[in-house]
Amino acid sequence: RIDGERLLGRLRALGGIGRDGDGRLVRLAASDADRAGRDAVAGWMREAGLEVMLDRIGNLFGVWDPGASDAAPLMLGSHIDTVIDAGIYDGCYGVLGGLEVVQTLREAGVAPARPIVVGAFTNEEGVRYAPDMMGSLVFAGGLGVEAALATVGTDGTVLGEELARIGHAGPHEPGFLRPHAYLELHVEQGPVLEREGVPIGAVENLQGISWQRVTIEGEANHAGTTPMSMRRDAGQAAARVVTFLRDRVSRSNAPTVATVGCMVFEPNAINVIPSRAVFTVDLRDPDEARLLAEEVALARYLEELAAAEGVAITVERLARFQPVTFDPSIVRAIEAAAAAHGLRCRRMTSGAGHDAQMMARVCPAAMIFVPSAGGISHNPREHTGLADLVAGANVLLDVARELAGA
Amino acid sequence: RIDGERLLGRLRALGGIGRDGDGRLVRLAASDADRAGRDAVAGWMREAGLEVMLDRIGNLFGVWDPGASDAAPLMLGSHIDTVIDAGIYDGCYGVLGGLEVVQTLREAGVAPARPIVVGAFTNEEGVRYAPDMMGSLVFAGGLGVEAALATVGTDGTVLGEELARIGHAGPHEPGFLRPHAYLELHVEQGPVLEREGVPIGAVENLQGISWQRVTIEGEANHAGTTPMSMRRDAGQAAARVVTFLRDRVSRSNAPTVATVGCMVFEPNAINVIPSRAVFTVDLRDPDEARLLAEEVALARYLEELAAAEGVAITVERLARFQPVTFDPSIVRAIEAAAAAHGLRCRRMTSGAGHDAQMMARVCPAAMIFVPSAGGISHNPREHTGLADLVAGANVLLDVARELAGA
Ligand SMILES: NC(=O)NCCC(=O)O
Ligand SMILES: NC(=O)NCCC(=O)O
Repeated sequence: RIDGERLLGRLRALGGIGRDGDGRLVRLAASDADRAGRDAVAGWMREAGLEVMLDRIGNLFGVWDPGASDAAPLMLGSHIDTVIDAGIYDGCYGVLGGLEVVQTLREAGVAPARPIVVGAFTNEEGVRYAPDMMGSLVFAGGLGVEAALATVGTDGTVLGEELARIGHAGPHEPGFLRPHAYLELHVEQGPVLEREGVPIGAVENLQGISWQRVTIEGEANHAGTTPMSMRRDAGQAAARVVTFLRDRVSRSNAPTVATVGCMVFEPNAINVIPSRAVFTVDLRDPDEARLLAEEVALARYLEELAAAEGVAITVERLARFQPVTFDPSIVRAIEAAAAAHGLRCRRMTSGAGHDAQMMARVCPAAMIFVPSAGGISHNPREHTGLADLVAGANVLLDVARELAGA
Repeated sequence: RIDGERLLGRLRALGGIGRDGDGRLVRLAASDADRAGRDAVAGWMREAGLEVMLDRIGNLFGVWDPGASDAAPLMLGSHIDTVIDAGIYDGCYGVLGGLEVVQTLREAGVAPARPIVVGAFTNEEGVRYAPDMMGSLVFAGGLGVEAALATVGTDGTVLGEELARIGHAGPHEPGFLRPHAYLELHVEQGPVLEREGVPIGAVENLQGISWQRVTIEGEANHAGTTPMSMRRDAGQAAARVVTFLRDRVSRSNAPTVATVGCMVFEPNAINVIPSRAVFTVDLRDPDEARLLAEEVALARYLEELAAAEGVAITVERLARFQPVTFDPSIVRAIEAAAAAHGLRCRRMTSGAGHDAQMMARVCPAAMIFVPSAGGISHNPREHTGLADLVAGANVLLDVARELAGA
């Protein structure tokens, strides 16, 4: 059995690293705060007897290889970068839960047939650098390491320069470890498990993700003197996209979700009609055909809008991932492990993107979810109770033993 | 006749002061750029033989008193602060046009019966500190000087501290000069004069202005896992206000205008549902009853929206000015001066707010407008041709002679 207090203590300690002046947790990828978080995790890995390795995109691995075997390792991973004003569980639970499992096995004198690697992937959140799940995407060969390192962030920085600056651009080629299987423990970040009173989710698939950045160029003019009919108001056009997206998605019975999370007006002055609006569109659906149809509908709407409003609209793709199906035999192993612990379990779809979806490209992969109080995540109120954290980590322990041959 | 080349030279020189790294003209009230602009204007005033005086709110006056008379002065004024990414005419034309008139009279050996004061009022634009027309409002006794100096700006600065820092917090009590009359020369900033091919506008009234700042508080949550029905999306609610305002105002035949110029989302991250949106609403109408009705309609909509969206909405009033009627005899004098120059002239309403509307509280006041190319203002493409600039300044010269008794 894993040590719940040790796990929670580390989660809280890591959650204290990267607080800004307002006390908000902001540990964006490749920032100084990320460096401090990485250093703490690497320290705990070494304490637990793991060998710490970094690859060129900054993915951090702790390798435990008691048998010095040649076998392909089992990887337990997630990420420790956060959104702005984040909670302490998203990602960190998977990394520290993986470490807790290895430490528990080691302390129990269990020697698995395969090495076990605990991984913390770079820039999973995608808030500073798009796309999200970047470290695991590069690791899985879905994006070249040079292209990824050249990514320019929302703050104008270049990821490769930032990784070098914080000392986490490692020597290894991404993909240098070839996992036998990948397991990720994560908080659900949605309302399903709590609502149904089920402590364990066996994640069998993950919805498709489409991220776009839309720029609307209108014409600055005086707010008092310019008749409504003579305006080319970029902010007005942007607002119409925001309402269009929700109205369309909410009208259908499909589980599609659409979000405009970022919005910037220029020149952003009270008596100046906005000359420019830049915003992001996050569209998701478990069904690829439907996700595609939503993208097409948006593109068509933007075309009509540009003509109707006399504005110019350009769209950049920031991320596009198709829905992913996880490995059925690992999903069954999760169900079996939950049952052995007397824990109710349900199969489910992940609404969030995860490193597991990238790792599924190169090895059998699946995920274990635990409930999120109120379905809240990407919010400082994100919370999962200790009993649920312990239950999830114990299920991970058992599935990991099985997959690592211990 | 005024010296058009000298006037244009000074307009262009002043327009070169306060350029940012991108070459944009950003001379916000009480900034370092404003200091540099003020110093240039004060220098030209001194060169032209005027005595420079500053009041506590930073209003800058150049006094020409050839007869050392006790008579109440004629004031010719406007402002030199700008919006973000501004043109070079808005405000500056009135200040430098007034200076040009005084210098022309002086060089022609004309000695008016009354002193003539050229005024540059602090923070007319209201972009950094609300309300707009603040310097003239304080001068006219409509706002206490202490309250005005305590105003916190969009950048968190305090106006009084900034004025002191740039050395433009003067010793005089605002209102220390008691003008006999006030005249303001300005670019129209709208499309009317150009469309009708009329070079001079005699401004007989000015529409009411309502500025509000709206804050919407929702709940941050994950963009991928949170069903549309469970969201409390502050950005979505804000977008609905933006479209509501235009849809409502455009449906009516009234000349009401509504603008959302500023918009900020928090935390402003691509995969986080906005927890907060803060935006401004600029509502204007020449008819007070109609302006009031628009404010009431917005307040009612915000109430419904808060309930429908599960968000909390708070509103701050940033500025509220009723429509103003200018002095009919000065308006007639402007028409007569235009006619004497063989210039077509039309009476008109000002869509923009101006210092003249505040000065009208304490003395007879009116304004002279010249055409704005394409009706464009609050935009670097703001433009008025030299012939129009000269025509307007010559009309100002003649009306000023009459009002100053020269
Ligand atoms: N788990 C998680 O929050 N991932 C961030 C990427 C996403 O937006 O889904
Ligand atoms: N003239 C001018 O642009 N004044 C700024 C105040 C307003 O927004 O009308």
